[in-house]
Formats: sequence, C-alpha cells, structure tokens
Amino acid sequence: MKYEVELKFPVAEMDALEAKLAELGVEILPPQVEVDRYFAHPAKDFAKTDEALRIRRKGDSNFITYKGPKIDPTTKTRHEIELPLSGGEESNADWTRMLQALGFTPVGEVRKTRRKAHIAWQGRMIEGSLDEIDRLGTFAELELVVEPEGIETAKTCITSLAAALGLTGSERRSYLELLLNAQ
Amino acid sequence: MKYEVELKFPVAEMDALEAKLAELGVEILPPQVEVDRYFAHPAKDFAKTDEALRIRRKGDSNFITYKGPKIDPTTKTRHEIELPLSGGEESNADWTRMLQALGFTPVGEVRKTRRKAHIAWQGRMIEGSLDEIDRLGTFAELELVVEPEGIETAKTCITSLAAALGLTGSERRSYLELLLNAQ
Repeated sequence: MKYEVELKFPVAEMDALEAKLAELGVEILPPQVEVDRYFAHPAKDFAKTDEALRIRRKGDSNFITYKGPKIDPTTKTRHEIELPLSGGEESNADWTRMLQALGFTPVGEVRKTRRKAHIAWQGRMIEGSLDEIDRLGTFAELELVVEPEGIETAKTCITSLAAALGLTGSERRSYLELLLNAQ
Repeated sequence: MKYEVELKFPVAEMDALEAKLAELGVEILPPQVEVDRYFAHPAKDFAKTDEALRIRRKGDSNFITYKGPKIDPTTKTRHEIELPLSGGEESNADWTRMLQALGFTPVGEVRKTRRKAHIAWQGRMIEGSLDEIDRLGTFAELELVVEPEGIETAKTCITSLAAALGLTGSERRSYLELLLNAQ
C-alpha cells in the first residue's frame, strides 16, 4: 500500500527558489498543463472524510487518482492510488460519464502549469513541482511515494530539503479546497 | 448515449445451434475465457436499481463496464458504458483496490468460455456469443449496440434472428443473478 508523503508551500518569489535549485544542480523540466476534475462521492462528503477522487488530464494522457485521508498533523501524507486511463479528450469525457453514471458528481476543476524537478537529497530522489495555479498563485510541492514503513524517514528527508530551500508556511489544504474557499 | 440491445437464451443443444449458424455461413471464433468481477454500490442496491458494475478480464485485457437499468419488458436493452483499462493481472487487482477504496465491494465472479460470432442479418451485423458459464450451463446471446433512435429496429432484427435460429425461453436475468439465485 503506497503512501504519498508531501509538503506544499506558497511561493512568493519563484525566481529565488529556482536559483536555489540551480545551486543544487537541479534541472527544472519544461512546463506541462494539468487539468484536474474533482468529484463528490454519492454517499459521503469527501470534504469531511478528507478523501478525494479526480481525473487528471496531462497533455494527451489521462489518470484517475484516489487520495485517502491525511494520516499526519503536519504533512499531507496519505494513501494514494493512481491508475492510467486511455489518453485523449474523448476518453477523458467517457470517464466523466462513467463516474457520473456511478453517482459521482463533478465539484470543481484545478488548472495548473507545473514544472517538475527531480531533487537528489540525503540519498533520496524527491519529486519537486513548481506550480502556477489558475486563480490561486504559485506554489511548490515536495513529494516522496513510499511504503508505510518508510513514511517517517521520508518526512524527515522532505522537511530537511524544504528548510534548505527556504520554504516556509506549509499549506495542508488541497488546491481544490483553496479554490472553493476563495470563491 | 449508447444502448445495448440484447436477448439471451438457454441452449440445451449447442451442436444444433452451431449447425444452424453454419447453414447461414457464420464463422464461430475461437473460445476466450472471460472473468467478470461484479461490485456492489456504496449507497444503493444495484440488484434493486437493476444496474451493474463489473471489471472484465479477457485474456490479457481488462475492461470496466457500467450497465444501466433495463428499459424494456422483453429484452435486456440498457444503457452501457464500457471502457478499456490497462491490461494484465496487476492492473486488474489495482482496479479492484481502486473501486474498494471508493466504497464498492466485490459481490461475485462470473467465469465463462465465450465463442463469438458475427452474424449478418437483415443488413445488420449482430454480435452472437456462445457461452459456457461455470456452474450454470450453456447460453447464447445476440446483441446490437445502438443510439436511442435505433433501439426499436434493433429489437425487431434480433428477435427475428432468434426465431430463425430456433432460440426460445429468453432469459432476462444476468449470469450473476442466476449464479446468486442458484447458491
């Protein structure tokens, strides 16, 4: 059972963060647009149970992702299941219809431009994301995907990298929550 | 919105049916094993709403299928959404985990050996299936997939072919229902 261990931070000065990554010799990959469509569950309130279900469009690819409740008071650590779907716009629409037929209802979309960076730190490869979220602003995410027994060391590793990059003011709410709150 | 127009019949003498298909010049394709895992919905009783959700394994391929309520008192005509999943056993297990995380629970499996036949009839191409269902017996299905405006002519076409093939005693219950009833 895989867990996503993640920290997210608002970033006021993206240039300064990019400079720090450059000092570490980290390459920032070209931007990709991601569109995440989130769904409400037919029988429970995902906002209360702290779960999420989304379909992500990334270029021509589609993915479906379930996120379990956060299991930790400081990070965004949670169980995650992400599976690939057939690519293309028609498949994206078909999957929305499938979920709607099963009683799930679309509740919002998050559109972002994401630049990924693979950051070697303390012998691990942390996945960094430099995000520009439509109607919300700029953020950075640091993430490791681990088995349950690796959660604590992953948190230590990510927290240490965040400090080294000068990232502060950890944000545990999802982009969807922030967008729905802002409305 | 696609509808599956279908008739299903128990077949006491499969040899006789095969002979009739041969007279029509129909080729029967090699057998394939299909394993269908059905799921219960987290908030409603699919047996009562006459819906179904299943993951089908066919050789190395996997599919997910939603079936809406039957809309007709004589045939098995219903809305159907079928989408391909990644192939292989691991993907099949991953999708079961995904559905379970969303509150769906496995309720039964239907294993069958299916031989398909494409049957030209009244200017249409009807999909025939000669099925051996584990623990249940032998059946034949005749099916057309159509838009709503084509449902009535599809029913007429399939009913006419069934009569020509000597198929009687139409069975509207699903294989899953028949298996659960037999237990």
